[in-house]
Amino acid sequence: MSKKVIIDTDPGVDDAMAILLALKSPEIELVGLTTIYGNVYTDLATQNALRLVELTGRPDIPVAHGAESPLLAPLGPAADFVHGWDGLGNINLPPPQGRAVDRPAAQFIVETVMAYPGEITLVPIGPLTNLALALALEPRIADHVAEVVVMGGAATVNGNVTPAAEANIINDPHAADMVFTAAWPVTMVGLDVTMQIIMTDDYMLALKTSGSPMAEFIYTISRFYRDFHYDTHGLAGMHTHDPSAIAYVLDPTLFTTVRGPLRVVTEGIAAGQTLLDRRQNWRQPNAWTGQPMVNVCLGADAERLLALYRERITA
Amino acid sequence: MSKKVIIDTDPGVDDAMAILLALKSPEIELVGLTTIYGNVYTDLATQNALRLVELTGRPDIPVAHGAESPLLAPLGPAADFVHGWDGLGNINLPPPQGRAVDRPAAQFIVETVMAYPGEITLVPIGPLTNLALALALEPRIADHVAEVVVMGGAATVNGNVTPAAEANIINDPHAADMVFTAAWPVTMVGLDVTMQIIMTDDYMLALKTSGSPMAEFIYTISRFYRDFHYDTHGLAGMHTHDPSAIAYVLDPTLFTTVRGPLRVVTEGIAAGQTLLDRRQNWRQPNAWTGQPMVNVCLGADAERLLALYRERITA
Repeated sequence: MSKKVIIDTDPGVDDAMAILLALKSPEIELVGLTTIYGNVYTDLATQNALRLVELTGRPDIPVAHGAESPLLAPLGPAADFVHGWDGLGNINLPPPQGRAVDRPAAQFIVETVMAYPGEITLVPIGPLTNLALALALEPRIADHVAEVVVMGGAATVNGNVTPAAEANIINDPHAADMVFTAAWPVTMVGLDVTMQIIMTDDYMLALKTSGSPMAEFIYTISRFYRDFHYDTHGLAGMHTHDPSAIAYVLDPTLFTTVRGPLRVVTEGIAAGQTLLDRRQNWRQPNAWTGQPMVNVCLGADAERLLALYRERITA
Repeated sequence: MSKKVIIDTDPGVDDAMAILLALKSPEIELVGLTTIYGNVYTDLATQNALRLVELTGRPDIPVAHGAESPLLAPLGPAADFVHGWDGLGNINLPPPQGRAVDRPAAQFIVETVMAYPGEITLVPIGPLTNLALALALEPRIADHVAEVVVMGGAATVNGNVTPAAEANIINDPHAADMVFTAAWPVTMVGLDVTMQIIMTDDYMLALKTSGSPMAEFIYTISRFYRDFHYDTHGLAGMHTHDPSAIAYVLDPTLFTTVRGPLRVVTEGIAAGQTLLDRRQNWRQPNAWTGQPMVNVCLGADAERLLALYRERITA
């Protein structure tokens, strides 16, 4: 039986790579894309989400337009230096034919979760504003989701925006803290694992020459993103951020995890940090005391994950 | 040639264990103890420092009484639940004969560093108020110390007071940030390593029965401290906190280190956190940009360190 999945997304090159993995995986029934600012502004995120479902022959998948700014933090600039001005590697795709559904993303999430109690897996791979709004609109969704799998954060390594903060989390730290402290089953797939999983130039060339149009599309959109990695990290390849969250949904055994309460720092030099309490045994109560457990990925079988990705995308 | 060392200390069971290691090591010339609140209040820290130099036959070593409260943070309670009401495991030592020198600790540090330019190694094993005050009194000490070796902080692991904070740092986070951002050579010996180095019950029994009165004294004062570890961590032994800083002075090759700017979070749920920037390559300037490099211990050869400790203490 397949899992019903909503991907909350700011496409984004690696968002596109994640969405295509979901579409090519029989274990996943993609029941909607909800959009958010981050890699691009929300308007472009919605257009790109529509482009992706249309290009892959799945215009039936609903796209819901989401929040255009964080709950409290200021809206930061789009990450055009990572993903290109169009969010998809500057490849000049035509405009989409379809349009977003007539409900905002948070409402779409609430209605879908409540319509399929216990069946929906939420996979936010951008800032967490829509999920926080959905929780605020209808707190009972916490009881009715199957699972929440967040791409974002960094529990044991530096962030990628500051030494403390990963991009998705720092974009809306208050929303992220709401998501990680809600009483629902949350898994964090953060930089602890996504930066351990490298799609090398050789790996990408193999995708390109595989004969699969989808694999070749992924190669094409990811050239700008690859060059960002080379310029910034000296890496002849790419970190595997958003596809890793989908991989977790497909096969959690690809990852090793630890559990503990997790809070997000909202102010000061550490704003955006995801701080995991691995001990849970303190003399004095603190901000973690009594908070729900979060499942945090700290290790990954990179080889097996990359093989799975290639297998699905080239099939 | 031996290194001239000032230990800034809040004795404290592991402080005593560290001071005795320094006294028994020919590579170290202990030129003074300066005292601080933390494990105990400063008055008792001064009395215990005097007791330790007298008990070991070294009443010639000057003791300077230090700050009685943090720069800005409120003074916390003494850690009598870790070290006992007397700071030395509730063993009812008689009062000391001598008294502290007639200058406060910060002034003693300034005068000693300036009197021996390039020769003094400062080893703070308590909260960092005295060192911050010394820097403020005479910033040139930064150019004239040989080295600063701090026991405190946690770069890659949880703290021991909150998930973010280690005890010495959270006691005065503002002072700690001053110490870690001053332009002097600083090494942090934090929980990343000190909790990897375990003095087991067997190890301690071997000290007790070694025939060395000093080793037996260490066994005696550490019973309460050992029981705290057992009750709190389920550990039939003790973490090796303060002695590890002295071990670093004796032989830095006992540790593996990384270098990067390090800031201390001063407010919010992460207050007291020591946040190390391991990347130093950011698109936007941040609180770490342009700060001096700190040398941070992340690995330790526990077996070799414990053998060194035993060898020196039982000699």
